[in-house]
Amino acid sequence: MERTHQPNHTPSRAAADGPTHDLPRGLEGVVVSTTAIGDVRGDEGFFHYRQHSGADLARERDLTDVAALVVDGALPTTADARAAIAAELRAGRAAPADLLRLLPTVTAAGGEPMDQLRTALSLVGQVYGLRPVHDVDAMARRRDALRVASVVPTLVAGLHRAGRGLPPVPSHPDLDVAADYLWMLTGTVPDRAHARAVDQYLVLTVDHGFNASTFTARIATSTGADMAAIVTAALATLSGPLHGGAPSRALEMLDEIGDRARAEAYVRDVVAHDGRIMGFGHRVYRTQDPRSEVLHETARAIDAPLVGFAEQVEDDIVRALAELKPGRELYANVEYYAGVVMDAAGIPRELFTPTFTISRSIGWVAHALEQAADNRLIRPASRYVGPPAPQPVPRAPVAA
Amino acid sequence: MERTHQPNHTPSRAAADGPTHDLPRGLEGVVVSTTAIGDVRGDEGFFHYRQHSGADLARERDLTDVAALVVDGALPTTADARAAIAAELRAGRAAPADLLRLLPTVTAAGGEPMDQLRTALSLVGQVYGLRPVHDVDAMARRRDALRVASVVPTLVAGLHRAGRGLPPVPSHPDLDVAADYLWMLTGTVPDRAHARAVDQYLVLTVDHGFNASTFTARIATSTGADMAAIVTAALATLSGPLHGGAPSRALEMLDEIGDRARAEAYVRDVVAHDGRIMGFGHRVYRTQDPRSEVLHETARAIDAPLVGFAEQVEDDIVRALAELKPGRELYANVEYYAGVVMDAAGIPRELFTPTFTISRSIGWVAHALEQAADNRLIRPASRYVGPPAPQPVPRAPVAA
Repeated sequence: MERTHQPNHTPSRAAADGPTHDLPRGLEGVVVSTTAIGDVRGDEGFFHYRQHSGADLARERDLTDVAALVVDGALPTTADARAAIAAELRAGRAAPADLLRLLPTVTAAGGEPMDQLRTALSLVGQVYGLRPVHDVDAMARRRDALRVASVVPTLVAGLHRAGRGLPPVPSHPDLDVAADYLWMLTGTVPDRAHARAVDQYLVLTVDHGFNASTFTARIATSTGADMAAIVTAALATLSGPLHGGAPSRALEMLDEIGDRARAEAYVRDVVAHDGRIMGFGHRVYRTQDPRSEVLHETARAIDAPLVGFAEQVEDDIVRALAELKPGRELYANVEYYAGVVMDAAGIPRELFTPTFTISRSIGWVAHALEQAADNRLIRPASRYVGPPAPQPVPRAPVAA
Repeated sequence: MERTHQPNHTPSRAAADGPTHDLPRGLEGVVVSTTAIGDVRGDEGFFHYRQHSGADLARERDLTDVAALVVDGALPTTADARAAIAAELRAGRAAPADLLRLLPTVTAAGGEPMDQLRTALSLVGQVYGLRPVHDVDAMARRRDALRVASVVPTLVAGLHRAGRGLPPVPSHPDLDVAADYLWMLTGTVPDRAHARAVDQYLVLTVDHGFNASTFTARIATSTGADMAAIVTAALATLSGPLHGGAPSRALEMLDEIGDRARAEAYVRDVVAHDGRIMGFGHRVYRTQDPRSEVLHETARAIDAPLVGFAEQVEDDIVRALAELKPGRELYANVEYYAGVVMDAAGIPRELFTPTFTISRSIGWVAHALEQAADNRLIRPASRYVGPPAPQPVPRAPVAA
């Protein structure tokens, strides 16, 4: 359809307004912003939120503490501070009846769980009457951020139940994020170890560099959209299958392999057809994915039904990939054991990606707050490479 | 809340994966992509779609032709080709009953027209069962693009009526985009000159460089989101008040001035308080905004009620700004006469920005198609500027 006409291109006009940069495709490695929220050091197999290792946080703290860390800049240091942020998140999960009442309409409109969640988040902006981020002060902005991020588990669980004709289970007043999410899904207080396992997964997925959805959240913030619009835009971007964050695909691969004896043949077949082995390899990590290491521990700790099989298959796949793609150093990524853990905790497979958004929304709003605190409209330039303009507009065709 | 700690920053790790670029804030003047869809030459007061001047297209062709130009790459050259694209757009405006039935629920949830439109567009993805852009072939992708873009006037009109307790007016089989939009708003076949005036406004606003919402559309496309998710993300980004595209503000200013004798005092007062004169000045144009010139002609051609007053105030404002901000060359931008034209055509002021999205959606999907045809995931990098990591995770506080 559109073909670019590189040979005929006119020089960029953006240059008139300042320096022009020509950048690698996909902006790979291009630093578009500074941030104090976190970073990924791919060559070291290390990622962090603020000044703390993400893996250590998953082992030693929980999502409530980590929400305070990324949103407010520090872990709670007193029991009162910890109780305060827990209460804010809990208040956010207790969604108003006006919002919950809309969920059956949203699911009846069809689509995948991520599509329904996108619509529900857009409705949050309407029902809550959120204002543009630059029209409110920093305190109101933070309040909006926590309200939007913390209602995500309620929406995911409520949409799942609505799609099955079930009423929502109101948020449990005594449970923290992960346990309350499992409670809102089922109406049963979850096993503590399972809730802790899901919590660890959530801690590990709050933030992970300037991926497409996080960048989108910052662009939407830069125009002054409201917090629900910002998270809706980020979620719409996340919904693309190339984004990552879909642990169900790794589990589907385990299903497909079915028996360890078939793992190596499976890998050889996929590689021979230029396919991708789901749950292996990462654009940034050249080592073990530290999130995968923690989730592997977690899967063993809860004696996940699939963990033994997953370990065997992992060994076979890593060995086969090392032979087939030497020098590529492909290891299990976050998706691989995430599926095993969520499956063990009773989360239905179609909710794996929506579950991922529970924690990632906290990262998105932290980036939105950071962008809003020192904003400049993000409006880059493009280089025109079509046929030279202007050429005369031909006369409109006339019907015979 | 978040303070960046510039002095302590660790070196960028993104460098490990390739070249690292440090860029101007807001990516101003930074070429992030090539495109053959169009360009803006700010220093020449010129913008174009493909190889044709946008202003000439508005004077000589209509939105149907221009949709073919930006989406398919060429103006229709035969009456049959023109009829074919018109029929595709018309089919898209005839939204299914399953979608129209949801609009009263969407408006009942509250929010501004742009928030309601964002939710309705998200529902389009669900009701139409759209698939990820990279999972379908180019023909299906183009069909999805046209379906999503062409239903926007139906949604804007339907939501407006639903909010007033009125049933939707079904799309008129004999009218093209602008006339049909006015028809769907009111149920009355519009005056031809008014429909033509709105059509000219729409042609002028299909595309305008790599602004924040267009960039968002391309990022969402790069992850493989579906066409409705892409347009929802772009629309969410557009909803921020710093994005521009809000002609109602210029009209509000004319109301506030009220009498020509007060125009100069108004400008002096706003400038003295560091405020912004709405409808004047543009980040790219250093000359007259060519869109404003066409819309000025249009406003005169339809003898718009406010055109005489707007001209007088424009003279006074340009003169006062030249004195108060010498060298800045601030002229009326697209918003200024757009409001005058839409007001004359009977479009309610709260629909000015939603009306803008009717044409801009066509530009967004054209960019989505261009991105999808030669895709690479857009995933830039950030530079971490917080306190050095890792620092030990402190023990969790324990309640007394």
